[in-house]
Amino acid sequence: MKIPVGVVGAKGYAGRELIKILLSHPDVELVSLSDKIDTTEPIVQTFPQFRKITELIIEPTNVEKINRKVKVVFLALPHSVSQEYAPAFISAGKKVIDLSADFRFRDVTTYEKYYKIEHRAKKLNKEAVYGMPELFRDLIRKARLIASPGCYPTSVILGLAPIMGSGWIDVNTIIADSKSGVSGAGRTPSPTTHYYECNESIRPYSVASHRHTPEIEEKISELANQKITITFTPHLTPMDRGILSTIYVNLTCLHADKHRQSENVSEADIYKRYEKFYSEEPFVRLLPYGEMPATKSVLFSNFCDIGLKLDTRTNRLIIATAIDNLIKGASGQAVQAFNISMGIDEKTGLLHF
Amino acid sequence: MKIPVGVVGAKGYAGRELIKILLSHPDVELVSLSDKIDTTEPIVQTFPQFRKITELIIEPTNVEKINRKVKVVFLALPHSVSQEYAPAFISAGKKVIDLSADFRFRDVTTYEKYYKIEHRAKKLNKEAVYGMPELFRDLIRKARLIASPGCYPTSVILGLAPIMGSGWIDVNTIIADSKSGVSGAGRTPSPTTHYYECNESIRPYSVASHRHTPEIEEKISELANQKITITFTPHLTPMDRGILSTIYVNLTCLHADKHRQSENVSEADIYKRYEKFYSEEPFVRLLPYGEMPATKSVLFSNFCDIGLKLDTRTNRLIIATAIDNLIKGASGQAVQAFNISMGIDEKTGLLHF
Amino acid sequence: MKIPVGVVGAKGYAGRELIKILLSHPDVELVSLSDKIDTTEPIVQTFPQFRKITELIIEPTNVEKINRKVKVVFLALPHSVSQEYAPAFISAGKKVIDLSADFRFRDVTTYEKYYKIEHRAKKLNKEAVYGMPELFRDLIRKARLIASPGCYPTSVILGLAPIMGSGWIDVNTIIADSKSGVSGAGRTPSPTTHYYECNESIRPYSVASHRHTPEIEEKISELANQKITITFTPHLTPMDRGILSTIYVNLTCLHADKHRQSENVSEADIYKRYEKFYSEEPFVRLLPYGEMPATKSVLFSNFCDIGLKLDTRTNRLIIATAIDNLIKGASGQAVQAFNISMGIDEKTGLLHF
Amino acid sequence: MKIPVGVVGAKGYAGRELIKILLSHPDVELVSLSDKIDTTEPIVQTFPQFRKITELIIEPTNVEKINRKVKVVFLALPHSVSQEYAPAFISAGKKVIDLSADFRFRDVTTYEKYYKIEHRAKKLNKEAVYGMPELFRDLIRKARLIASPGCYPTSVILGLAPIMGSGWIDVNTIIADSKSGVSGAGRTPSPTTHYYECNESIRPYSVASHRHTPEIEEKISELANQKITITFTPHLTPMDRGILSTIYVNLTCLHADKHRQSENVSEADIYKRYEKFYSEEPFVRLLPYGEMPATKSVLFSNFCDIGLKLDTRTNRLIIATAIDNLIKGASGQAVQAFNISMGIDEKTGLLHF
Repeated sequence: MKIPVGVVGAKGYAGRELIKILLSHPDVELVSLSDKIDTTEPIVQTFPQFRKITELIIEPTNVEKINRKVKVVFLALPHSVSQEYAPAFISAGKKVIDLSADFRFRDVTTYEKYYKIEHRAKKLNKEAVYGMPELFRDLIRKARLIASPGCYPTSVILGLAPIMGSGWIDVNTIIADSKSGVSGAGRTPSPTTHYYECNESIRPYSVASHRHTPEIEEKISELANQKITITFTPHLTPMDRGILSTIYVNLTCLHADKHRQSENVSEADIYKRYEKFYSEEPFVRLLPYGEMPATKSVLFSNFCDIGLKLDTRTNRLIIATAIDNLIKGASGQAVQAFNISMGIDEKTGLLHF
Repeated sequence: MKIPVGVVGAKGYAGRELIKILLSHPDVELVSLSDKIDTTEPIVQTFPQFRKITELIIEPTNVEKINRKVKVVFLALPHSVSQEYAPAFISAGKKVIDLSADFRFRDVTTYEKYYKIEHRAKKLNKEAVYGMPELFRDLIRKARLIASPGCYPTSVILGLAPIMGSGWIDVNTIIADSKSGVSGAGRTPSPTTHYYECNESIRPYSVASHRHTPEIEEKISELANQKITITFTPHLTPMDRGILSTIYVNLTCLHADKHRQSENVSEADIYKRYEKFYSEEPFVRLLPYGEMPATKSVLFSNFCDIGLKLDTRTNRLIIATAIDNLIKGASGQAVQAFNISMGIDEKTGLLHF
Repeated sequence: MKIPVGVVGAKGYAGRELIKILLSHPDVELVSLSDKIDTTEPIVQTFPQFRKITELIIEPTNVEKINRKVKVVFLALPHSVSQEYAPAFISAGKKVIDLSADFRFRDVTTYEKYYKIEHRAKKLNKEAVYGMPELFRDLIRKARLIASPGCYPTSVILGLAPIMGSGWIDVNTIIADSKSGVSGAGRTPSPTTHYYECNESIRPYSVASHRHTPEIEEKISELANQKITITFTPHLTPMDRGILSTIYVNLTCLHADKHRQSENVSEADIYKRYEKFYSEEPFVRLLPYGEMPATKSVLFSNFCDIGLKLDTRTNRLIIATAIDNLIKGASGQAVQAFNISMGIDEKTGLLHF
Repeated sequence: MKIPVGVVGAKGYAGRELIKILLSHPDVELVSLSDKIDTTEPIVQTFPQFRKITELIIEPTNVEKINRKVKVVFLALPHSVSQEYAPAFISAGKKVIDLSADFRFRDVTTYEKYYKIEHRAKKLNKEAVYGMPELFRDLIRKARLIASPGCYPTSVILGLAPIMGSGWIDVNTIIADSKSGVSGAGRTPSPTTHYYECNESIRPYSVASHRHTPEIEEKISELANQKITITFTPHLTPMDRGILSTIYVNLTCLHADKHRQSENVSEADIYKRYEKFYSEEPFVRLLPYGEMPATKSVLFSNFCDIGLKLDTRTNRLIIATAIDNLIKGASGQAVQAFNISMGIDEKTGLLHF
């Protein structure tokens, strides 16, 4: 029997991608689409792509009504709004997969500092699981509330995870330089997403202040078992989708470093570490050593491609990762967590691209 | 009286931009265009943009013939080819402005190592001046042979120059993450510049091995008066033109560092240092502190825009620079050096965008 | 049991899309990929997107070897090459779906005139069926050799088909102005597909001489039961994929025409005619009257979206159609024909986008 | 002595281009920039490109203040707003060059019908001259009020002008299919100009109803000395700037037509007619017969490139024209008219690209 599923926040880009994936998911029945609207509207009004694919309509969000229909609900809502809805779904015994930032932080004070609001579901936040299958698969399996990771954090954390606990790096030297397509900024028109302002231009934004910074830091700190602070710089790039993160970290071993005592590891050791870490992962693809990923190779897919190259002259490891920000960086990863949580094959509905 | 000028290598993108600038330069008469071709052809055959603007023709390169006509020659040639031609022009008493890499290195062995050929004009190389006006204006004034800087090096060196001799930074922590439009790869079709491969994609290339790395290192080492090694990562970005370089460097002073003894500088000190360094520069624009440049703001212009932001959490300075790779990164900068060298106003012919 | 299928010409863009679709097709087993190569190579070497999706390798094309494995073969080859291979597959009892132009013409002399070669499989050509399900579904069902339509013809014929036999139009006034993304030009780099030449530019090409003109004419002539000559103008547009065809045709009825005797039809009559014609079609979507299609709404899908608007001032019908040139305009339509021909649900494997 | 000039509406894209051109115009002193704002702001706040180029500020529009400073005023305002300001400038003896649609129509009722407002400066409208130098150079010379043509009309009228009075065409068969970059939609963000909605997509809009249709019709009707109705279809194309218009018109002579009596003209006759018509024009470039224009060749320039090809099979002439919508289609053409009107060389300030 198919699992009855709802999407709250159906009119944004993440919502659209979710619906797309869920519609072709063999174990899912999409029974409810809703958003902050006044009257019911057919989905094709917002997204004409769905014509002749589905007759689904989007309804004004009504928690009780949704609760009567679904077993699992995806929240594709802005931060601060998810925490309004999540408790009611959880109380009704539903499983919630939230794509906003609201439940991503173990440390709620960090959340409150960076998002500049008081968290109104602190108790629930305590049990939320960070929905990154590569790190928290077992927890996801049992969670009632899954906080699906941010797009940038996905690309950066997956690039760093294998090396974090190695003892081979200087954790104070991590820099992540990320380049994102414009869809990351959402569906609401603004001067910064106006065609003529974005096209034929690249620029950094939110330098040294982007909200995804503490999200990355919290997770990699856990992995390294020590508090880590990083520099993270996002850039807006003239393309629809895709994030490329180029990550830099100094090695504490090898040729260059004379000061710190540490085992002497080789490029091959590092590569093998990554290979082992991700060998069983269905959606992480480690490229041959020295080969670098292009976002084009992961577009519309749930894959994260990773390339590694050691700059032997500076003893710095360069890790480049590529994801589709709307799939692995949002809706695809959410469905992957959903699959795990439902006990079905993790790849279900996600191998198309 | 106008200065008779020639362009060798008129059929490449840098050649085209040079011709465009020189045609509207009030003190220049463009008397010779040539390239590696068998028979004379009108320029509009290669670049239809010039129809009704000029009747100039491109001729097979003939050094003697060119020498009879010009006073100054621009070489817009591939590396290894420039060094074949330059000596003959210099011997004939001409001034040469070379846009290739052939004469950019004081240390010819570095050149030979990275470009994998023997340098065949080593003696001439000794007197070549690196044509970056912001650093070598006085030398440019007197030089017979000007080596116009590479596009990436222009964007990185201008970003770092003011801080190099400050003693405020850890010179071993410099990372330059550069994003370039596709025109940087030239006019010859290849799989990597095929539309469908570039469009809607971003990717790093030549990681830890790009030839512009030693060019940057040599110049910033001179500025710091010590040998510096950096990590430089170029990326191919889906746009015609423009380079954005995001540069990271650790401060040795301020809050974070307890170990090294150094004066305690503030964000304002750093900003003032940049402000002072570039206050008289016609083509460098320091943005208000914290504001970041977009390549769109410098397209088709000879400007380099610079943004600064201190990441106080990591005590790392983030410098972002934007240039048009074909103008300030190639032809515009070459004309700027030409102007200086001819004793005319440095901005002549370069304020349009 | 799954149908064993092979793709000859696996290294082009159409080949790649075919493989993508066939891999997720529930009734297909992709048992052979081949191309004009000397030694076997993994598909990920050419298309890194397939990493962790398939381990398939591409082999040098060997008809006998392929015949031993497949039941159906897709030929994603250049014209003139398909006709070399098709006979051998047909003789061996295989079903052939050819994506080239080689078997699209009933009138082989038209083919020979436009493609400037002698047809070397004329006998086989006689039995080929034009693989457009909307027009030839019944013939496709029984065909051994299916000639999959060209991308432009698909977009133009589907736009015109419902009105051709109506008697309501002046068939001598048909003009199709088509705009295509760059992938239509294939994977081989050339000056016309060089990023910098295509990006930020739109231009017509092959004006009044494009080879798809006679293909369109032959099919719409059949529909109208009279010989029709059209004007067709393709344009190269700065985007990866998609074709928008804007089609103009004069009405012989309604307000403007006093000379010809014909029934007096209304906009609603025309719209209803289209509605009826396509009501059962799974992959044609008629938009509400007056609404116009955007290529973005059909990207990566097998749909053809159609918009209609009558210019009452000139009594001219404007039909705009949008397809993804690589899907409905090539591989998707080929799979649709395959499904019909195999007696399985026509939509199988084609509802994803 | 330089001519003191003002720009009202300095914050739009047309305003920006005007300022750019006027700043490097040797005979102009730009003494006033204004817009609908509350307090004075430096131009670099809106357009950072002007940093280190000009210190000009934009002021709240104050007609009297402007009148004290300028001799000529450019109005880069939305339609309906220009007609509010123009009379006061004219009364004060200023020359006005208006870039809006307000004074483009001789027939004010057509204007009122298409723009859905009452014209409030009808008397002034009577003396306005349509600012297309190729057609109305002599009138422009003497005009007090110049109505600068629309972008689409420029591209279509220049394509048709030479053939209109020839008697060789069926004037009822004119179709103009135009493709524009997104800057034509202005600086105000909206869903239709949102990056993700425009990028990788092409679509028609305002089909059979665009306001530029009657503007084209009025001018070509004058040229042909008979009332002409055309079909005009604009398309939004994923690029910053540029308009390509592909224009179709049936010939009444040559091979195909047996019914109408007319002289028998050849392709060469048609080409010569265009050649002669534009031989003295500085900004129209007729390409060699059969060659087609690309918008890239006219970007940032004041040129209109024209290509001609006869479809001998249908006896239809295909005319393709390319302009930069913001230059020849707006600000460049306005400055060209200004130059004529001031008695200075028409090309002044306009040969750069």
